Amino acid sequence: MYAGAQVSLYPMADDFVGIILGALHALDPYRDALRIETDDISTLMVGPPEKLFPAMRDLFVAAAKGGTHCVLSACVSRGCPGEPDDPFCTPAIQVGAVGPLKERIEAARNAVVAAALTGQQAAAQFSHYPLGVGHHMDEIYGCIEFLKTSGVFDRPKNFCTKLRGDAGPVFATLEQAFLHFGAPPEGHVTLDVTVSANSPTKA
Amino acid sequence: MYAGAQVSLYPMADDFVGIILGALHALDPYRDALRIETDDISTLMVGPPEKLFPAMRDLFVAAAKGGTHCVLSACVSRGCPGEPDDPFCTPAIQVGAVGPLKERIEAARNAVVAAALTGQQAAAQFSHYPLGVGHHMDEIYGCIEFLKTSGVFDRPKNFCTKLRGDAGPVFATLEQAFLHFGAPPEGHVTLDVTVSANSPTKA
Repeated sequence: MYAGAQVSLYPMADDFVGIILGALHALDPYRDALRIETDDISTLMVGPPEKLFPAMRDLFVAAAKGGTHCVLSACVSRGCPGEPDDPFCTPAIQVGAVGPLKERIEAARNAVVAAALTGQQAAAQFSHYPLGVGHHMDEIYGCIEFLKTSGVFDRPKNFCTKLRGDAGPVFATLEQAFLHFGAPPEGHVTLDVTVSANSPTKA
Repeated sequence: MYAGAQVSLYPMADDFVGIILGALHALDPYRDALRIETDDISTLMVGPPEKLFPAMRDLFVAAAKGGTHCVLSACVSRGCPGEPDDPFCTPAIQVGAVGPLKERIEAARNAVVAAALTGQQAAAQFSHYPLGVGHHMDEIYGCIEFLKTSGVFDRPKNFCTKLRGDAGPVFATLEQAFLHFGAPPEGHVTLDVTVSANSPTKA
């Protein structure tokens, strides 16, 4: 298993460097669990798949809490066959489309309900790509059923699904879709994720 | 065929609204060829696949030319089976993995060499997802061979490939990978694209 994300943070402000540097402390609690490496386009986070969304959520909330329009954009991946198997990425929980769909939908909903609120409103959209061997349309429809009852479902859009709500349940919903739908434990799933706060544009 | 992109533009400046509004005129020449629709997260462009990258390039260059650190992020898709077939999206050129790989690599290189320079330097990274029926590894390796000799190849990264150069050949390279590799004319291909200009971070 290899899992990780290429994450970018875009504060729409002259002081974007200060806002990004000020938010980075939010990653401190994750530095033992994730390998983190930055270049001029994105920050790579590699580690157990269940650590990725909490780290991204805390980074996003730390950047957005001052009221600046901020966007977090990420390419999140598990099981990419082009990456080496890495014991560092071994999940501590069950990951993958394992067990009856109905039970996974229920468990995913419960995880979102249990997610702590952050006090930061967010709008998000994402595309869910199950790669490799044929599409499992039951998986896709099951994931959509989960999303529609997640409490943060906004609407379907072309090529993606839109969410809206507190950043806690929004990131929890993205995490559940990533961890428990689309492909078996060793299968390849990616998410193309955009999360936005404080936009001056009306939804 | 249904083709389009969800495109977001992020100017890292207090005047981000002014910079975005000032750049939108760059889309005027494409308004007959593309249906364009905006919400608080992204702008949907729908139309022939070969119109998408020139429109994104011109929007990006118009936003970046004042020297502000700007990022364009896009989810680009053709042949998504979840979207309706739309005659408006019918390409005017041959699209898809058609014909010998060697000839396509050569044609893609020639298209990049012929791309007009914009005077705007850019760094980009993208992930290429051929979806649906099994992976065609020859296609992936063929596309990588093209990228490495495109003249704007920077380096492979985890989950994506990084490009660097003038925005003209950079967008032309993304377009060639999207149009001519990965899946047949009616197959499903998506690109997760990030293009950045004027970053204060050293590469």
